[in-house]
Formats: sequence, C-alpha cells, structure tokens
Amino acid sequence: MKKKKNIFFGTLEEMSDTIVEACEYFAKHVSELKDVTVFAKDMKEMESRCDRYVHTILTELNKTFITPIEREDIMALTTSLDDVLDGIEACASRFEMYHIQDPDEYITLFADILVRSAHQIKKAIYMLGEKKLLAIREPAIAINELENQADDLLRVGVKTLFAREKDPIELIKRKEIYERLEQTSDYCEDVADRLESIVMRNS
Amino acid sequence: MKKKKNIFFGTLEEMSDTIVEACEYFAKHVSELKDVTVFAKDMKEMESRCDRYVHTILTELNKTFITPIEREDIMALTTSLDDVLDGIEACASRFEMYHIQDPDEYITLFADILVRSAHQIKKAIYMLGEKKLLAIREPAIAINELENQADDLLRVGVKTLFAREKDPIELIKRKEIYERLEQTSDYCEDVADRLESIVMRNS
Amino acid sequence: MKKKKNIFFGTLEEMSDTIVEACEYFAKHVSELKDVTVFAKDMKEMESRCDRYVHTILTELNKTFITPIEREDIMALTTSLDDVLDGIEACASRFEMYHIQDPDEYITLFADILVRSAHQIKKAIYMLGEKKLLAIREPAIAINELENQADDLLRVGVKTLFAREKDPIELIKRKEIYERLEQTSDYCEDVADRLESIVMRNS
Repeated sequence: MKKKKNIFFGTLEEMSDTIVEACEYFAKHVSELKDVTVFAKDMKEMESRCDRYVHTILTELNKTFITPIEREDIMALTTSLDDVLDGIEACASRFEMYHIQDPDEYITLFADILVRSAHQIKKAIYMLGEKKLLAIREPAIAINELENQADDLLRVGVKTLFAREKDPIELIKRKEIYERLEQTSDYCEDVADRLESIVMRNS
Repeated sequence: MKKKKNIFFGTLEEMSDTIVEACEYFAKHVSELKDVTVFAKDMKEMESRCDRYVHTILTELNKTFITPIEREDIMALTTSLDDVLDGIEACASRFEMYHIQDPDEYITLFADILVRSAHQIKKAIYMLGEKKLLAIREPAIAINELENQADDLLRVGVKTLFAREKDPIELIKRKEIYERLEQTSDYCEDVADRLESIVMRNS
Repeated sequence: MKKKKNIFFGTLEEMSDTIVEACEYFAKHVSELKDVTVFAKDMKEMESRCDRYVHTILTELNKTFITPIEREDIMALTTSLDDVLDGIEACASRFEMYHIQDPDEYITLFADILVRSAHQIKKAIYMLGEKKLLAIREPAIAINELENQADDLLRVGVKTLFAREKDPIELIKRKEIYERLEQTSDYCEDVADRLESIVMRNS
C-alpha cells in the first residue's frame, strides 16, 4: 500500500508511526519501571530508527528534482518530527541517568498528553500525504490545546515539587524530567505550526 | 484612528502596546509583591489577550490574498512578539510557583531593562506601520544594547547568588528567575532581528 | 591573499578562524586553570572580535546589491557561527562566575570535541569560499558525528556527577558547565546544517 506512496510522504508517515510507538511505549512502561536500562535502551532504538528516516529523506531530497511540496518545507517538517523523538528519548534516558524508579502522578499525566499529541501528529501527517490540507487544521488545533495542558501541568507539577520535596538533588532530577516532558510537547506544537504554515502557503 | 490602519499593522501595534503594559505592570508590582497570586493572574490575563491578537492575525492571513509585507514575515514577527509576552508571563508565574515574595536588586534591574526594551519594540512596530523602514534601525540597535546589558546583569546576578546563597533550593529558584528574565530580553532581541531582516529585504 | 576574496566569504573565514582560536585557547587553558578571571576575559575578547565580524557582514549586506549566495543564507550562517563563539565564551565565563578552578575529565573531553568541531567548521567555511560546495558534505558529517559524541559524553558525565557529587550546589555548577559545553557542540551542528542547506539549494 505504501509502495505507491511518494517517498517523502511515505517516510514522514513512518516517522509519525514511530512517534506514536515511542510515546505509547513510554507511557506504558514509565508507570511500572522495572528496568530503567532496558527502558532507556528501547527508547534509544526507536530514536535511532527515526534518524534513519531523516537520512532517507535527506538522501532523496538530494537526488530528486521535483518534490511534492517545497524542499525547505520537507526539511523543516522532518527536523521537527525528529525533535519529538529526540525529546521523548532524552526524557527516558534521564530515568536511567538519575536512577529514578518511582514515577509520579505528573509524569503519568505528561505521558498521557504526549500519547494524545502523537496520535494527532500521525493524523495530520497522513492528511498531508492524502493532500487533505484543510483538514490538517483540526489536529493542529488539538496539538496546540494539548501543549497548553502540558504547560499548565508543568506549573502545577513544579509548584508541588517545591512545596513537597526537601532534598535539593531529588528536586533537580524531577524538575528536569517534568521540564523535558513539557519541552517534548513544545516540539509537538512545532510540528503543528510547521504543518499550518505549509497549509497556509499551499491552499 | 486605528480604523483606517491595515489590520495586520494595527494588530501588531496592539501586541506591542500589550508588551509595554505587561512589562510596566511587572516592573511596578515586582518591587512590592503583596499578593503573588494576583500578580501572576494579571500577567496571565495580558498574555491571553496577546494570544487572541495572534489568532486574529492568523485568521486574517488565511483570508487575505495580498499582504502589506510577506506573510512569512508577518507570521515570524507575530510569533516573536508573542514570545516576549510568554517570557515575561512565565517569569511572573515563578514568583507564585516558588512563593517568592522578596524580590532583589537584580530582579528590579532586569525589570527596568525589559520596560525600556518594550518601549523600543513599540516604537519600532509603529514605524513599520508608518512605513518608516529605515528609522527602525535605531530602536533595533537600542534593543540589542539592552540585551547586552541583560546578559551582563545575569552574569553578575548569578555570580553574586552563588557567592551569597547557601540554601540550594533558594538558589535554584532565584537563578531560574534571573535566567528567565534574561531570556525574555533575548526574545526582545529576536523581535529586533526579525524587524531588521524585514527592513533589509524591503528597503 | 584575502584581499581578492569576496568580503562576505573573507569575513566568514575570519569568523571560523576565531572559532578555532577560541576553542583551542579554551582547551589549552581549561586543563590548567591558574586565573579564571584572565581566562574569562580572554575568551570574551575573542567573542567581541567575532561580534565585529558580524557587524561587518551586516553593514556590507546593507550596501551590496548582488551577493555571492542568498543574503538570507549569509545572515543565517553568520548568526550560527556567532552562536558557537557565544556558546564557548558563556562556558568560560561560568568558571569565573562559579569559582571553579578544578576542571575534570569530562570538561577536558568536551573541549577536545569542540576543538575538532572548530577545525571542521573552518574547513567547511573555506570550501564555501572556494565554491567547492559538494566537498562540504564531508566536514558537515564529521561535525554531526562529533555532536553525537558530545551528547553521549553529556549523558555519561551527568550520570557520573549525580552518582558522585553529594553537594547540590557543586552539582548545579558542574551540570550547567557540561550542558553548556554540549550546547556549544549543538551550535556547531547548526553551522553544519546551515551549510548543508546552502549546498542543497546551490548544487
């Protein structure tokens, strides 16, 4: 089915599939962290797979004269999708680096927001491949709303952390994890913004 | 008076008015923090107002064929003005999140730099609306100089903090506030850079 | 020899020479920190010199009608080179701000990566001036690989820091220095990405 797809749209779709897979893996395992080393390693594997998709797109761009949308847009979209994977992988790695084995309610809530954002990204990327440009607005708005939720969650989470946690080193670790999870949600928003900009110039 | 204005320039001007209002409010109230909850709430209200201006510009861009300057430039300028409001609001919220009620000399000095930067931004945005492109260079240079002052202030402030503050949690809180204030000044510089790039390509 | 050079390529080359000089100075002196004030001051001097090159390029862009590559590309490349200098100078200044006089193995390893990245940047910038566009790919790939090494080093360094350092204020200081060194390597990667984008559109 993907064989007939344009190579650029097909690979962007594979990147969005990997984002869904990574966010779901993260959400599932972060709530029951048995082995942080395996957890970080599995996330790294998905991130490396995404890097290979980036490489495919770059290589194809270099040998293709006519692209379905502007090459600069393909590049920017690819980079922003890659940033999402890098972001969630960097979060996962901190559990291993900081030996954190007891996640908390905020981490679980962030993970849920990221899963929902990932599905909206996938939806939007597939709409791009099907040239349903105007339909992209809906998932783009949903991603923006999820990002607002992540921002609110960061504020409540960090406020609670400062109120409860008296060990400064524990506080540093957890604050950074919250911030990186929120930043990953920002990267999802960058994908949405990039898509809206493509829609604006092509419809 | 604004009725005759182009909708894009008019809305950008309203954004710059809100930046001045927010920075002045911040500077006035941060030196005598009676109620951090009200302080954070008021700043959030101004930030939300700015989000509505962004929405107006986006909606207009989608239904307008001919724009006074390139649509990409309008978008980039809008985003950079929005970042300034987001930045100063994020600073204000930290006073509430961290229960900080005793500001210090550095916070006051940062606030003063931001008030001055906000006025230069407003000046430059109005010049854009009046098509006085070459005149924009002057406020743009002023914003860059203020950003250098903010950077120097951050260094002195953080150095002093590490020399004086022995409670690591207090240090984390205040260091973050200084850094976010300095970052807001960076966002002001981004507005200036964006304007200079528009001037360069249109004069 | 440089007299015949195009002013833009010539100045970009001088920026890349300064990046090599600054990274080598940093690597040489960070391992034997006798006077952190002199160390920070010398690095600041190189950073200011780079600011003057940026100013030269901006001034020339404003009075030149035909540029050898697109003006937007010259601007973006200039900014990304300037970011590298700003990044390494900000690292150096932290040794003075935090009174750190005993560097560690990780700082030395980061410095080595930055020296190697700086040489690759210089190589690539000179290739641009000589219009050897396709040859740029090789140093660009090398810079990307060095950035991956810096990212791995950050993870090992921070993990070790959290395992060993029990003083939270010491931990904050050193974590920030590692992160800023890694970020400088990200700025080097931005230069490479920018160059690859220029190559893509001009070959």
